Amino acid sequence: MNYPSGLQKIIEMFSTLPGVGPKTAERYAFHLLEQSEGQLQEFSRRLSELKEKTVICEKCFSIAEKTPCPLCTATDRREKTLCLIADTRELLAIEHTGQYHGRYFVLGGLIDTIEGHGPEKLNIAPLIKKIREEKPEEIILAFDPTIEGEATAMYLVKILKDQPIKITRLARGLPAGANLEYADEMTISNALKYRNPY
Amino acid sequence: MNYPSGLQKIIEMFSTLPGVGPKTAERYAFHLLEQSEGQLQEFSRRLSELKEKTVICEKCFSIAEKTPCPLCTATDRREKTLCLIADTRELLAIEHTGQYHGRYFVLGGLIDTIEGHGPEKLNIAPLIKKIREEKPEEIILAFDPTIEGEATAMYLVKILKDQPIKITRLARGLPAGANLEYADEMTISNALKYRNPY
Repeated sequence: MNYPSGLQKIIEMFSTLPGVGPKTAERYAFHLLEQSEGQLQEFSRRLSELKEKTVICEKCFSIAEKTPCPLCTATDRREKTLCLIADTRELLAIEHTGQYHGRYFVLGGLIDTIEGHGPEKLNIAPLIKKIREEKPEEIILAFDPTIEGEATAMYLVKILKDQPIKITRLARGLPAGANLEYADEMTISNALKYRNPY
Repeated sequence: MNYPSGLQKIIEMFSTLPGVGPKTAERYAFHLLEQSEGQLQEFSRRLSELKEKTVICEKCFSIAEKTPCPLCTATDRREKTLCLIADTRELLAIEHTGQYHGRYFVLGGLIDTIEGHGPEKLNIAPLIKKIREEKPEEIILAFDPTIEGEATAMYLVKILKDQPIKITRLARGLPAGANLEYADEMTISNALKYRNPY
């Protein structure tokens, strides 16, 4: 005895999502079964349209509604500052702070030598082209403070070292609201190393 | 700046699933964006067909492919034993043990007085009708060992007390592989109270 095939298939579909095991997939599917036919049809339609309604911006490679995206066409942003991020989610996270007013460029991932994800999988050629054309004065490397983020930063610093560009990276230190007592050694070491004058 | 509306809508759809917050929904949506158009269309189609391909069995109220379901029409199952469960997931869990050979009846939930989910929301009338027609000799109450499960069991015992039916419930005790040292007091108390002769 198994679930009816329609239900079983939806459980299998949900199981392909990241971090979703069979029990969670089952929970999602049963939840959907309790929804109205209209809600199910809307979910189905939105999924079906997902790709057709999103494009990759030809200038910054972010996921957007049209290309070039509003951030690349905005006239009130600093032209000479370029922020590199791994993917569009991080672009949104930075935008939500309201503290950054330059341009962006999405690399499409980070270098991960263990996973065999090298620089050839990233948008390096379009980045070089963009830098040649737009001549940014500063490039901010806004990557995760992880081995992959550091590897990607080191690679970029190396290939950009002959350009007259100031390369910076996001600060390391204590996150807002942290408990010094519970912070890890690396975070405290960084907080000490990069301490700021009052 | 927000996500493109197509992506935003899918994130909102996923956020309606139980236990899925905005960050998880975002993760699911970005994962789907990386899938092929064919996979997305299949997911969409399966969602769209979900309700049309599943029915509620008219005899046991389980979610099934057709009604009456294979468990209700099987001729090799004990007619006189009826197992009551809250929903179809629990029916599957019991079926997978291969240890039960009677019939089932899905109540459609448990009594939860705090949530205002009383017996009127359960399939009580069809249960009474089924009992009157099929005259089971034993009814097994296979509910979660929780306040809701107990409340539902007590309610059923009360309404069935005048019938010549043996009413049993799933055993309480130590789960397989448990560590006595880490088991909670209620579990150990039950294991003592319901101890079995060797």
